[in-house]
Parts: sequence; C-alpha cells; structure tokens
Amino acid sequence: MSVEQALRFDGDALWALDQTRLPWQETELALRSADDVADAIRRLCIRGAPLIGVAAGYGVALALARDPAGLELACETLRRARPTAVNLAHAVARVRAAVLGAPPGEQAAAALAQAQAIDAEEQAASAELARHGAQLLSGTGRILTHCNTGMLAAPGRGTALAVIAELAQRGSLELVLATESRPLLQGARLTVWELVRLKIAHQLLVDSAAPGLIAAGDVDAVIVGCDRVAANGDVANKVGTYALALAAAAAEIPFVVAGPTSTIDPSCPTGAQIEIEERGEEEVRTVVTGGEPGRWELTLPGTRCRNPAFDLTPAPLVTALVTERGVARPAQGDSVLGLLP
Amino acid sequence: MSVEQALRFDGDALWALDQTRLPWQETELALRSADDVADAIRRLCIRGAPLIGVAAGYGVALALARDPAGLELACETLRRARPTAVNLAHAVARVRAAVLGAPPGEQAAAALAQAQAIDAEEQAASAELARHGAQLLSGTGRILTHCNTGMLAAPGRGTALAVIAELAQRGSLELVLATESRPLLQGARLTVWELVRLKIAHQLLVDSAAPGLIAAGDVDAVIVGCDRVAANGDVANKVGTYALALAAAAAEIPFVVAGPTSTIDPSCPTGAQIEIEERGEEEVRTVVTGGEPGRWELTLPGTRCRNPAFDLTPAPLVTALVTERGVARPAQGDSVLGLLP
Repeated sequence: MSVEQALRFDGDALWALDQTRLPWQETELALRSADDVADAIRRLCIRGAPLIGVAAGYGVALALARDPAGLELACETLRRARPTAVNLAHAVARVRAAVLGAPPGEQAAAALAQAQAIDAEEQAASAELARHGAQLLSGTGRILTHCNTGMLAAPGRGTALAVIAELAQRGSLELVLATESRPLLQGARLTVWELVRLKIAHQLLVDSAAPGLIAAGDVDAVIVGCDRVAANGDVANKVGTYALALAAAAAEIPFVVAGPTSTIDPSCPTGAQIEIEERGEEEVRTVVTGGEPGRWELTLPGTRCRNPAFDLTPAPLVTALVTERGVARPAQGDSVLGLLP
Repeated sequence: MSVEQALRFDGDALWALDQTRLPWQETELALRSADDVADAIRRLCIRGAPLIGVAAGYGVALALARDPAGLELACETLRRARPTAVNLAHAVARVRAAVLGAPPGEQAAAALAQAQAIDAEEQAASAELARHGAQLLSGTGRILTHCNTGMLAAPGRGTALAVIAELAQRGSLELVLATESRPLLQGARLTVWELVRLKIAHQLLVDSAAPGLIAAGDVDAVIVGCDRVAANGDVANKVGTYALALAAAAAEIPFVVAGPTSTIDPSCPTGAQIEIEERGEEEVRTVVTGGEPGRWELTLPGTRCRNPAFDLTPAPLVTALVTERGVARPAQGDSVLGLLP
C-alpha cells in the first residue's frame, strides 16, 4: 500500500489520507489553511478523536504561518468543526497558549513546534496504550470492535485497534468481529482496510448483529475507542457503542474502552453534559458504495431522519478504560481522573 | 398507489408484490408452483413470518393443482425455504393435513380451501391484534419499531405496524421512529413506504442509534414483530431486536412484541432450541440502492462476514406479547402458552 500515515506535515501543507474514499481509493488531500483543515474534519476526511486533535494543532500552525494575526479566527473555526471529541478543543487550546507565550516573530514556529509535540505525544500514547490493553486482555481469542480506532483514527497505531494489533502480535488473537458502523461505514470501509494491512483474521457484521452474537457466546471481549470521557467515567463514543456495553454486561464479558488521557474531560462532570453531535439526515438516507461515485438512496427521497453520531455509555457498564497512563475500572468504582497527569 | 396487497391469489397464480424492489418499484411476481413460491420466500420477495406462512399454504395448493402426486415434495421444498419462522412449517403442515384428509379428486380443492382459510384467519388476527395492542399502548406518543411488520409482513394490516396504525387512528401517536434494519433495509425500504401510505409522521434511524435515543428519553415504547416465540416466552425476531429490548429495560419503557398466536411454538421449550438462520455474506458486503440496479460494495471484495438474520430476546425482557387472542406479560412471569387456543 502506498500511504503509510493518516496525516503527514511537510512544512508547507498537512497531507491527509482522504478517509471518505477508502477502501477503494488511497488519495491524499493537501491542506494549506485552518479552513482547509476544519473542512476536512467536518467532512470526515480526517476523523477519530485523537487524529482530529492533532490535525487541528497543525491547522493553527498553518494559519499562523500565513497570517500572524489569524490566531483567534483559526482557533474558533477549528474548535467549531466538530463538537463531541474533546481532543480537538484541547489541542487548539494548547497550540494557542504556545503562540500567546512566544515572542512576536517566533509565534508561527512555536505553533508548529506545539502541533508536532502533540502529534509525537499521541504517537507515544498509542504504543503505551496498546501495551496496557494487551496486558489487560491477555489471552483473549475473539474480540469485537466498533467503528474505526486504528491508524486512521489516532496517530501511531491508534487506540482500540492498536490493542487488537498488539494482541495479534502476542499470538492469542483468533478473530476480530468488526461492526460496519452505519451510517458512514467506518467499520466496513476503514477497519476492514486496516485489518487487511495488519493481516489479522476478521469478519464483518451489520451493527445490530453484535449484541446477539455476544449473547450467543461468540465474543470473548468488546473493545472500542472513545470521543470523550466525562469525569465520572461516562463515555461518549460512536453511535452504537451503548448497545455493545449493555450486551457485554448481560453476557458478563469485558467491555473495554481505549483512548489517550487527552480524551478525558475533567471539566465535564457526567455524560449528560457532553454535546452529542447530530449530523445531516442525508447520511442516513443514502450510502457511499464502491461502485458509482456519489451517494445512493436507501429510502424514499425526503424521508425525515435522526442522525446522532454518538451515544453515551454509563460508567457502570465500562469494565476498563485503557489509556497510555494505565487502566481504570469505572464499573468497579475507579475514578478516571486518577489517570490524568 | 397501485398495489394494495402484498399477496393475492387469482385461481391460477399467487401474485406477490416483489418486496426486494420496494420502495422504488411496485411490481408483482406471478408464482405458479411451489418452487416459485419457495424461491420468492428465500429471496425475500415475500417476507415476514405470517406472510410467508400464508404464501407457503398457497404454494402447496399450487403444487396440488399441477400434480396430484406432488404433495410431499412441495411441502419439503417450502418448509426448507427459511428455517426460523414457525408459521411457514405450521401452514405447510395444515394444508398437508387437509389434503391427506380429503378424498382423491378433491385434494387440490381442499388444499386451496385450507390456504385461503389460513389467509383469512391471519387477516382477522391482524385486526384483533391491533385492537389489543392499541389498548395496551393507549396514549403512547413516540414509538420505536424495527424491521417491517405491516401489510408487507402479515396479511391484513400486519402485526406491530398494525398496532401503530391503530394508535395513529385513535389519535395519540406523535411520531414513529423506524430503524433502517440492515442488511436488507426492510425498515428504510418497506416500513417507510408503509408509513407514507398510512400518513403517519416518522423518522428513520440507523439501527445502532436506537438504544442511545431510548436512553436519552426520546422514545415512549418499543414495539416489534416476532418470527418465533418459544414456550417459555423467549422471542426470535429480526437481528437487532435484542439490543432494543436491553435498552428498553434499562430505560424502563415498555418493550412489546406483536404477532399472531401462529408464531408461538409450544414444541420449542426455549429460545436456545430455535434455529437462527445465517444468510449469505454478500448481504453484509453489499447494498441495494435506489440508483443503479444490482448490489453495490460497501467494503473490500471478499471480506468475510457473519450474517445472522435473527437474534433472541429472553422472556424477562418482554414486557408484553400481543396476539389476536390477547396479551401475555412474560417479564412478569405470564406463560405465553395460555394464549393458544
């Protein structure tokens, strides 16, 4: 395969693998401004909570390089691109603070240095998180995952999919059951593409098949990523996560959430305070396929739809939260805040 | 709209609305043999537990009319068409018994009379079931349903969707939330088509969004159909049903199952004895759209898939089973067998 990274910065542009065209086409977008980056995030060319954080950091740096006075507008544009993942707001705030703390004339360099630091930290976090997760799930044979949480979702090897890759390297893993993740099919399009590259045995499911297979005893553990973790351990993640947590609890198998500590939001007391993004109805009414370009209708034109992109899983259903700084067990009453630096 | 019934028998052929082409095309298939009927059932041109039972009854009658010696082969072919719904086997057994009990020369007429009797009984059951269900759910404003359970799934007005239509007529209903029901999108294609005809306000969801919306307080009750109900009250229904039952229980809203008593299988002690049909992997890998004909790829070609068509909901999660003979409350320990004649 030609493209080895979801994002790369070449000094002049942020190059992003266009995730809306995978698995059928591997093409990169050249993003040269904060607007370009915000647009790519909104359109899900770049997605995954840690990855959009890193991209937003570079977005601020790109803005500063073009216009030393463009800081606040760039930060605002990027922050607004998507509301649920906290990594985006965190990264923008960090790069902004670095700029404001730098002498005039060195601000663009400070922005880029901070964006690169965030990128490097997230890459290191992915490796550490994978190690902790593989230790926790040591010996697991059949693991179910949802949406996409690999190199396309986070720098390095990703989050939940990094744990899966580590388990595969350690030799116990038999099979990954991957949900397709309607409406945008990040599982069918992106996770399958990653599992093929990783040479890990897998089967694809429609989303609603997962709870029944868990109940039937076909799954040993569930592992997912997260878009935001509230202070009490409630988890906002890709729509469909909550049903997996309910089914895992009923079947008494581990329900594990993996994400860097940058995903924990101590300012958010519970899940009820997390804004759940509702996306356009067209995503439900239509689908992108590997055939003709464009979106194709699945129902009558004009059908009204609800399209929440995320749902909330209450802390008591979360067997473990795996981060680069170790593991907390919210279902047993552990505080996730203890994982923060 | 031109086609008013999912099935009609004209003395010579069973005419079936081809449900694989809805909502974009309303075309009827002329089925003239048991093989034609079995094939239409297997390909889901005819679907829904009560409707495939009625179709199979006519299938035996068509076979007898062509070949008086064709009874056993026709029965076997039809029984094998789909394994999970018990209505199919029941209807075949009833028509077969009528044939065996008739004098030679009157067997074809006996088969047709029995098939028509089953059809008429199911139509009457739909009306009674709707009345019982609307009484049970009286005053419900926002109801969520899964897959398709209307006139396309059962003679008359259907099962769960008949209850919804009755609630709408009585005036309390505000909104139907309909799941799309991947892989074959019976919700997006068929339920939306029926709700438009019924002039009932509705919103379409991806399947995995339903549990989160239930948890968020956006749903007052869930109602689904059933493909087989075991003696202990366990329910086999469209894949995805189990997650709705778990979410409804967690949110403490009613989870109601609607089906004629022909769906209850007293010979099946629990859900564990129900055979869950696994359908072809291609249904998961691909999708039918309203654009170009044929199936379109959603993932890399050759991706391995699991495709269970049904799942099991344990009786303790079933608030009520609504039939034409009244209501049982399995979650409160009611036996469903008490509903049988």
